[in-house]
Amino acid sequence: MKDGVLINGAPAEFGWLQERAWQFGDGLFETIAVIDANPCLWSLHTERLVLGCRRLHLPLPDIGLLLAELRTLCAGRARAVAKLYWTAGRSSRGYARPVPVAPCRVVHVSDWPQCELTAWRVRLCAHRLSEQPTLAQIKHLNRLDQVIARAEWDDMAIDEGLMLGQGGGVVCGTKSNLFLQSHGDLSTPELARAGVAGVVRRLVMELGDGTGLPVRETQVSVEDLRKADAAYLTNSLIGVVRIAHCDSIDYDLAYGEHRLMTEARRLCHLPDLNDGPYE
Amino acid sequence: MKDGVLINGAPAEFGWLQERAWQFGDGLFETIAVIDANPCLWSLHTERLVLGCRRLHLPLPDIGLLLAELRTLCAGRARAVAKLYWTAGRSSRGYARPVPVAPCRVVHVSDWPQCELTAWRVRLCAHRLSEQPTLAQIKHLNRLDQVIARAEWDDMAIDEGLMLGQGGGVVCGTKSNLFLQSHGDLSTPELARAGVAGVVRRLVMELGDGTGLPVRETQVSVEDLRKADAAYLTNSLIGVVRIAHCDSIDYDLAYGEHRLMTEARRLCHLPDLNDGPYE
Repeated sequence: MKDGVLINGAPAEFGWLQERAWQFGDGLFETIAVIDANPCLWSLHTERLVLGCRRLHLPLPDIGLLLAELRTLCAGRARAVAKLYWTAGRSSRGYARPVPVAPCRVVHVSDWPQCELTAWRVRLCAHRLSEQPTLAQIKHLNRLDQVIARAEWDDMAIDEGLMLGQGGGVVCGTKSNLFLQSHGDLSTPELARAGVAGVVRRLVMELGDGTGLPVRETQVSVEDLRKADAAYLTNSLIGVVRIAHCDSIDYDLAYGEHRLMTEARRLCHLPDLNDGPYE
Repeated sequence: MKDGVLINGAPAEFGWLQERAWQFGDGLFETIAVIDANPCLWSLHTERLVLGCRRLHLPLPDIGLLLAELRTLCAGRARAVAKLYWTAGRSSRGYARPVPVAPCRVVHVSDWPQCELTAWRVRLCAHRLSEQPTLAQIKHLNRLDQVIARAEWDDMAIDEGLMLGQGGGVVCGTKSNLFLQSHGDLSTPELARAGVAGVVRRLVMELGDGTGLPVRETQVSVEDLRKADAAYLTNSLIGVVRIAHCDSIDYDLAYGEHRLMTEARRLCHLPDLNDGPYE
């Protein structure tokens, strides 16, 4: 017999309920800053998307097609946010993917968000990240950890929550990566077992490698957070912001900013860079 | 400006892309055997759904309404499968849920599947389950672990894959729970850090408690699997099936079946039980 569906009590077609992104979170996404119809840090976004495809055993997307569609939707917008989805497409019930997979490609463009870019007020979340090396670093659609952590606060004065791993080390924010500056050196939590490897994070690390000021990827404790001279959060929309305080830890915002972070802030919203070393 | 969307190149409305189940897997589901429009083990399914709501901080569903909708869709079907979804509804981009959350309630009914219920041929999966106490036991929509594990084989002769946790212990199948019989006693892997607490698993354990034959919840090693006299898989559609072999481990199917498993097999597809102790 034909499948029957009620959505909030109303008869509906099976249609998009077959999407494996809906059924299982079986896919990937990227959130991209777009300026004058040019995506910022495009090559870093697409390289992470390709890494995600390898990890999830998904076919690779046509990057040129994604770029063309993004540019079409962003035409006439000075600044916009593009969210790309690349998923395992549709199937009936059951974890087995169809053979072959027919991926679903979505480009969604929306207005640039109102976003506070002065120093952020941060809290430590009680919910800890799942431990899963296969899903670490990539930007997949299983994001309950971030949802649960973000639901811990409704104080509008809090801009972000930092998350610990199962072992109690600091890993990243719900939507950002963390950098600590101590005695002139930069470090960032290693992401072998949890966390997303952000594109701005990678930009900072490549800048460091290129200028002989390598950023240390390391295990970071709450005590390291407390002892740092300065702390930063990064993501593709905010770029680089300093942390003003994290719970009871106050950072001295007059402390001189590390030059790699200043340079990364400048570069991550420059779309013309996409024709340079990061395309 | 209005959001722009292309799905596989075709202009589309934002619509269901706002669903948080699609964006983040922010929700829960249940897969239920339905006989003559009566759901089997209904109270166990709904209790797990409520546990999931508590863990994810979602509002509780109206269980009577879900049951009425399920019965409406199953009218005229001797046997059917109902998949219920209870999600965090819609929002724009970003992990923060809207206040208040307006959940999305979906009832999807399809034909009873062709399912091999003689002894199953099983393999050990290489992909290990994520470790996350908050998400253990409940049936949430972040199911990449199961998708990745299920994609490891395409041999139609393999019915199921058993999955290990991050620590190397056996936890459960991709879509089933495991029971081992050794020297007349039953045990099942504990699910404190990973795995789904299946409704038939709970039925077996409650039967055990009720008959003075308690089932031991314990850490299970691959060696325990090898040494067991008999092994069983359970879920709401297959009920109880014996394992014929797991990779190189062969089980003697002539070995006498534990009476709890026989009794559970009988009960889990009896809808009239829903008016008994398990409603």
